[in-house]
Amino acid sequence: MAKEKKLVEAITSMEEDFAQWYTDVVKKAELIDYSSVKGCMVIKPAGYAIWENIQKELDKRFKETGVENVYMPMFIPESLLEKEKDHVEGFAPEVAWVTHGGLNQLQERLCVRPTSETLFCDFYANEIESYRDLPKLYNQWCSVVRWEKETRPFLRSREFLWQEGHTAHATAEEAKERTELMLNIYADFCEEVLAMPVIKGRKTDKEKFAGAEATYTIEALMHDGKALQSGTSHNFGDGFAKAFGIQYTDKENKLQHVHQTSWGMTTRLIGAVIMVHGDNSGLVLPPRIAPTQVMIIPIMQKKEGVLEKAEELRKTLVSNFRVKVDDSDKSPGWKFSEQEMRGIPVRIELGPKDIEKNQCVVVRRDTREKTIVSLDEVEIKVAEILETMQKEMLERAREHREKHTKVAKTYEEFCKIIEKEQGFVKSMWCGDEACENKIKEETGATSRCMPFEQEHLADTCVCCGKPAKAMVYWGKAY
Amino acid sequence: MAKEKKLVEAITSMEEDFAQWYTDVVKKAELIDYSSVKGCMVIKPAGYAIWENIQKELDKRFKETGVENVYMPMFIPESLLEKEKDHVEGFAPEVAWVTHGGLNQLQERLCVRPTSETLFCDFYANEIESYRDLPKLYNQWCSVVRWEKETRPFLRSREFLWQEGHTAHATAEEAKERTELMLNIYADFCEEVLAMPVIKGRKTDKEKFAGAEATYTIEALMHDGKALQSGTSHNFGDGFAKAFGIQYTDKENKLQHVHQTSWGMTTRLIGAVIMVHGDNSGLVLPPRIAPTQVMIIPIMQKKEGVLEKAEELRKTLVSNFRVKVDDSDKSPGWKFSEQEMRGIPVRIELGPKDIEKNQCVVVRRDTREKTIVSLDEVEIKVAEILETMQKEMLERAREHREKHTKVAKTYEEFCKIIEKEQGFVKSMWCGDEACENKIKEETGATSRCMPFEQEHLADTCVCCGKPAKAMVYWGKAY
Repeated sequence: MAKEKKLVEAITSMEEDFAQWYTDVVKKAELIDYSSVKGCMVIKPAGYAIWENIQKELDKRFKETGVENVYMPMFIPESLLEKEKDHVEGFAPEVAWVTHGGLNQLQERLCVRPTSETLFCDFYANEIESYRDLPKLYNQWCSVVRWEKETRPFLRSREFLWQEGHTAHATAEEAKERTELMLNIYADFCEEVLAMPVIKGRKTDKEKFAGAEATYTIEALMHDGKALQSGTSHNFGDGFAKAFGIQYTDKENKLQHVHQTSWGMTTRLIGAVIMVHGDNSGLVLPPRIAPTQVMIIPIMQKKEGVLEKAEELRKTLVSNFRVKVDDSDKSPGWKFSEQEMRGIPVRIELGPKDIEKNQCVVVRRDTREKTIVSLDEVEIKVAEILETMQKEMLERAREHREKHTKVAKTYEEFCKIIEKEQGFVKSMWCGDEACENKIKEETGATSRCMPFEQEHLADTCVCCGKPAKAMVYWGKAY
Repeated sequence: MAKEKKLVEAITSMEEDFAQWYTDVVKKAELIDYSSVKGCMVIKPAGYAIWENIQKELDKRFKETGVENVYMPMFIPESLLEKEKDHVEGFAPEVAWVTHGGLNQLQERLCVRPTSETLFCDFYANEIESYRDLPKLYNQWCSVVRWEKETRPFLRSREFLWQEGHTAHATAEEAKERTELMLNIYADFCEEVLAMPVIKGRKTDKEKFAGAEATYTIEALMHDGKALQSGTSHNFGDGFAKAFGIQYTDKENKLQHVHQTSWGMTTRLIGAVIMVHGDNSGLVLPPRIAPTQVMIIPIMQKKEGVLEKAEELRKTLVSNFRVKVDDSDKSPGWKFSEQEMRGIPVRIELGPKDIEKNQCVVVRRDTREKTIVSLDEVEIKVAEILETMQKEMLERAREHREKHTKVAKTYEEFCKIIEKEQGFVKSMWCGDEACENKIKEETGATSRCMPFEQEHLADTCVCCGKPAKAMVYWGKAY
């Protein structure tokens, strides 16, 4: 019973210590384990199954827009990484270097890809000749490495899993459209599937991707009031094309540079789901992403007919839901805690008395609401309950975000909100990096994005008082 | 028209130069491209889509047997790699070493995983406590790196994609069963999906995996008579468990070592499909693995109604088949060659005269057989044709293998067959590594496996004349 002991130790409450609560949940919901490789994690079956569902949903959406999957090498020769000046400056300090292959020292160092712009550019330079070859809409699913100093499971680790899309277009306009299209796909996916509302906007120059002309982002608010960048989409214009010589012959037979984009989402989304929806009993998974949606827990399972009926119920549900029966020899109370810790959206309790009445008890993970359901209409009811849960999880997350989004018109207000209340602060900004730097130094908050939905809150910058150029969402961030 | 030019250059015929034919096909069917990273390839959309189908089919079969997916770090600390003596000896000479992270030299070198036994063992040592934790049936999809000197697309490259399953069991018997179960899954997959017959057997000690007690293998015969190891399944016994201290408390409360297995299949399967089924017009894909199964090619597509009818036909077929219309402005003849080069199993030709007669022409890629099909029964007919094609591709490959499998009773016969005819040679063997070494040196052939289906061909070893212990399949191999 070593395992039972482990789980019944209460997890730290999020009000007491949010960081510890997070660590407890990732461990006790069995999403990850630490590994012997410093800063790298083992993603366990319960965690990886969430990633598989994220992959399935995103991949389908990508392919509907014409994207094709490819696979590039995991290594980048140093000379290739150095071809685009801003890009190498941004990434070189945090890459892992391979210096030996087998028993020999390499003639040129190879870095393990931190991102693959340079490889895709090198490939496109050979691949693209004419306007007929455009657009190229490629994506890859892989792992990347960034040598971070401080790491946290899912949120920041030296190796993480992601997808990276890389496209090449004939015109600047098409590249811009693709950048926006992918950001919208990301945002819709977060809201529809992860029940996580996001702010769509553009990064300031200080915060944009190394080598990009413009970076678009979706920003979500975690339960503790910190922001999490949840997906980004970059418009490179023709900067990389010029550095790598990616040209095509247009219809008038003139040589032109292509315009490029890249866009990515990572396993950090799993961290986001934990911190947006989790509670003091553990993980709460939105039904659409949950690897197991329904756990049937037999009550008094040794009584004749109970396990058989539970199995019969599973068979009724399995064509429409991801459903399991927990027929282990643990107590029902223990099974309840375990199902709650793992965030399984609903459990169905089924005992001899229920069977007598031809009913079962359906319990929602998020609200604990119990519904007595006739076994004759269990399929319809479970579908309704899961749908309602998915919808209400999004609504609750949105309410939480609204409640923790404040307007600051003066620098004093700004500092007070960041210090006392956490959450997003909306303020006007002059466009000057000096103000971003000052705010970061003095408050710890960074500019999250200039949202597409701009509001005119004031005429002047919240920091320096000069004329304002844009409204910005600010916040402390993961 | 630069692209048209490229394709119409005939590919080298396989009879003239099989290796060049192979290289031409992988390039011209647009499966891969070479990269700036020596020994690594870019897997292009047409190649990666085959891998996605392989993944889907295998993953489903794995999960049906209780396997769960996980993700381990891509790095292995040198001290961890060294824990199992045979294993490190086998792999250390061919791994890539990371020595620097960011700007700092690492305290301990990390190798990029060539395979992940050591990581799984390290993980299992922490994870497994009691018999209740067993079995562990984990798999991961990832890329691995082996610093090969000579490389060929799909067959041998410094980085390749694969799955690696790693299981831990309470008893030696269970580990043996799992090793055999996975080998059978691999063999069935090759025959049912890839239409590729395989010989199931056990590797000799000389050829087994570094650290394994027993390695089982499936061996396929390529069109040129060379063998290709297509999947392996290893029984580790408790060797790794002892090296890593992986113990569990059994029902009698005694400490026991676990018994382990691992098994893997790689992107080299794509190379196998090319070399088993391809012909002098390019790739030939078995229908069950083909990313596009049906290509509709409109004839005289500028005539009113042709493209509309082609699109209507696509809509009829799309719910049951992976189907596309080629409505590009190339000539029909060009489109035919392209469809053939890419190995798309059937094309449907549809022109004004066909439309008038309410029919279309279905052409099989492998036999070029044309069938005139009424548009009213096109769904049924296409299904029949694809099924027949799948079945006949397997039969043809099996006939080819039978024709190129010879028995050698004397060493003279053995040498002659290997030199003149290529293919598999079946011979008796004494069990001594000295004979394997002699045969390899003198003929270039290696022992492929001791097949599960043993035959008694003679009493003595084909090489040394001592009493025979087993029948062995020999051959030159990729």
